[in-house]
Amino acid sequence: MAYISQKRTGLAPFFNPKTIAVIGSLKEGFFGGYVVIKSLLNAGFKGEIFPVNPSYKEICGLAVYPSIKVVPRRIDLVLIITGARSVSGILKECAERGVRAATVVSDGFAERDEEGVKLQREMAEIARQTGIRIIGPNTAGIANPSKGLIPNPYEMGYEKVKAGNIAICAQTGMINPQAFPYGDLHYGVSKICDFGNKCDVDECDVMEYLENDPATKAITLYLESIKDGQRFLKVSKRVTSKKPVLILKSGRTEQGARVSASHTGSLALDDRIFDAACKQSGIIRLESFRELFELPKIFAYQPLPKGNRLGIITFTGAVGVLAIDEGAKYDLTVPLLSPGTRKKLDAIFPGLGKRIVDIGPPMAVVNDYMSIYSEILKTVTVDPCIDSIFNVIWTGPSGEFMEEYLKIYRGLEGIRKPIASWVYGPRVPYINEMTCQLEDLGFPVFPEIEMAIKALGTASQYAKTKGGNR
Amino acid sequence: MAYISQKRTGLAPFFNPKTIAVIGSLKEGFFGGYVVIKSLLNAGFKGEIFPVNPSYKEICGLAVYPSIKVVPRRIDLVLIITGARSVSGILKECAERGVRAATVVSDGFAERDEEGVKLQREMAEIARQTGIRIIGPNTAGIANPSKGLIPNPYEMGYEKVKAGNIAICAQTGMINPQAFPYGDLHYGVSKICDFGNKCDVDECDVMEYLENDPATKAITLYLESIKDGQRFLKVSKRVTSKKPVLILKSGRTEQGARVSASHTGSLALDDRIFDAACKQSGIIRLESFRELFELPKIFAYQPLPKGNRLGIITFTGAVGVLAIDEGAKYDLTVPLLSPGTRKKLDAIFPGLGKRIVDIGPPMAVVNDYMSIYSEILKTVTVDPCIDSIFNVIWTGPSGEFMEEYLKIYRGLEGIRKPIASWVYGPRVPYINEMTCQLEDLGFPVFPEIEMAIKALGTASQYAKTKGGNR
Repeated sequence: MAYISQKRTGLAPFFNPKTIAVIGSLKEGFFGGYVVIKSLLNAGFKGEIFPVNPSYKEICGLAVYPSIKVVPRRIDLVLIITGARSVSGILKECAERGVRAATVVSDGFAERDEEGVKLQREMAEIARQTGIRIIGPNTAGIANPSKGLIPNPYEMGYEKVKAGNIAICAQTGMINPQAFPYGDLHYGVSKICDFGNKCDVDECDVMEYLENDPATKAITLYLESIKDGQRFLKVSKRVTSKKPVLILKSGRTEQGARVSASHTGSLALDDRIFDAACKQSGIIRLESFRELFELPKIFAYQPLPKGNRLGIITFTGAVGVLAIDEGAKYDLTVPLLSPGTRKKLDAIFPGLGKRIVDIGPPMAVVNDYMSIYSEILKTVTVDPCIDSIFNVIWTGPSGEFMEEYLKIYRGLEGIRKPIASWVYGPRVPYINEMTCQLEDLGFPVFPEIEMAIKALGTASQYAKTKGGNR
Repeated sequence: MAYISQKRTGLAPFFNPKTIAVIGSLKEGFFGGYVVIKSLLNAGFKGEIFPVNPSYKEICGLAVYPSIKVVPRRIDLVLIITGARSVSGILKECAERGVRAATVVSDGFAERDEEGVKLQREMAEIARQTGIRIIGPNTAGIANPSKGLIPNPYEMGYEKVKAGNIAICAQTGMINPQAFPYGDLHYGVSKICDFGNKCDVDECDVMEYLENDPATKAITLYLESIKDGQRFLKVSKRVTSKKPVLILKSGRTEQGARVSASHTGSLALDDRIFDAACKQSGIIRLESFRELFELPKIFAYQPLPKGNRLGIITFTGAVGVLAIDEGAKYDLTVPLLSPGTRKKLDAIFPGLGKRIVDIGPPMAVVNDYMSIYSEILKTVTVDPCIDSIFNVIWTGPSGEFMEEYLKIYRGLEGIRKPIASWVYGPRVPYINEMTCQLEDLGFPVFPEIEMAIKALGTASQYAKTKGGNR
């Protein structure tokens, strides 16, 4: 076969294609090539789309081609959604046409049975021989919201994903738009990538791509296996020196690892070895699925702290004590504020200038509560004894303070210290509204006290490894 | 003084009073006696309310009395919201009038300064001498939703709390209705109690009361200190033999403990000693603030498991592997299903009868997806190799399966195994709606995969200590 000879290319064609071919099922439904095309059109993809299927003439107003061979343009990226057995043939045709990137959504490979293992090996071999890069098989694919590139193979129920600084990647489709409510978020993502079975492109390739992606400030990954331990160590070490890498790895336990191996068809790694690798390379290890989406916010939207000294502003002592306990896990300390700050706070309300700045007591008695709140927050955030701030917001029974809170936060934008917020109150709608509004301003809000503290704690630890922390 | 002599009474008058006096500030605003009275009226309290304040004649249509001495009825419960210095005098007058229960909302006691410590000692002495029981000071008080008894001193923004089986108690007002959205919940609570500074009534008194409260199936507590270690051990051991007791204790770290002592005025306990006490007495220890409200749901609304064998139904392998890892922390194992079940599942879709029942693959290809889902769920839940079930629900892009999911769950009501659910999907409104509807049916939904597994895991461990687990 006369493949166009080329060396293995990077991942740019996946994330920034001008032309895309969608090869396979175009049946209307909630899964398949039809959904991919609709998603691309809805998200405002500016490039050209070429559906490929011998049984159709037209779909969504686009001409359909019987084969990739007759598509009249050079194609940057193909998406393949066909039966497992036809994938290799299609990949060869694509390589012959000079396609350099293929996302194989099709399943039924190493995760299914012995035949699938063989088919997947064939694909890997094609990638090796032709230089075509393959994401998958068994993947929900990638997204680049800033380009309107959301070629999602499952119906997602919304059209746009807010573009931002966080790259979310995983060895599962649980991070793709059909599974996670990106449309309802108020922070933005730079890239989404489901590795699938990793027959070619793996976590290291993606990390290397994101390392040099100016849109990405923080990288978060869910992994079940590592394809090449030595390379992983080398690459992650280099990448973490530039941007934070946060990893949730499952298959920690023996049974988990065994089951993981059976569903992705890949070998799991001894968890202790992985843990040591994380420590060595500066990876931040996550502990729950939700943290994948929450923890990177502190890195993407706030400055790194200059040290480990945490300031706490709360409405009750209990939250402060919980925060101190949690902070200790990450070597955060809660210092006495400087004498000047304490004096100023005590002048606002007697006893306010403590280690935990508890605005509950003044709140119950002061009439114009919000004016002192503003003063308190400003005073604490600029205190030279404090490197990061955990701020608690009580929404009130009718969200009456929302506008004023926002005004106060806008005034904090010049402060070069990270602020993690936790919003609570008696009504869910106001909690949600306040959270959205603050995140629109670039101030991350965490769904739990402990997660807010972990965010500040890992930011402090990360800053230290980078030498930016005293 | 001629106190009505009596031995120390239990806490019934706090939670089931026929007559309440509200003593102190009646000023309109978002805090104080006025709010208490409005909350009682709005929540439908059926007893009589007697406001006491020398400066008013009438409030909310109720006659106001200048002093507790002239209130024309025997009073079961008083709420005191006055300056700290006048509390003792009022308590004495109440005791003389035969009042047996007083909630002291007022602050400025041991949590503030030396004078406050003295004032609080005086109160404790009055309780000891007269037999009047005191909750507080520095408390947001109690609630008993089934009686419309929500005497909340802070504006809460809603009127009712759903009555149910969970008692939530804490050494902080963070669990009271102004701080937590009970009005938006779809599970119910039996009692709420903020201990405040614990000058008299403490965690042991409340546990003993709840031990014999037929409305309470599970007890959850936030504590910063233990008043009497020996008694705590004895009482908690007895109570956990009847109902589960879940405790979040802060002040775990040295700094946390020190700060805790300063804001509640009580001595903190070495965390290792507390941890040992929990193990000895069968207390379930919580790790985050949110768990206080979430974890008891499994005990209150589901049967205890008969063993530690977990069944997992999910849409992706990744969630299954995460669940297995998490389950291992609580000695949950995920067994092979019985041969009959596996055969039945494989007949529905080839390869379905695995350790993790992954309905992702059939879902992408089967047309009438919901009919097989129903079959799968029923088949797995009745499998004799399974003691508890983690079920994952994907809401879909437009919540289209909601009604069918609910129908299927209704059909599960006879199965005497606990089911913990996790709902995810691409749109927040459908996730929320599905969650509410399922909880209305009595099936707890957890906000995180890991929390759902922890709920099942602790239920299994608790059942084992009760001898109900193989």
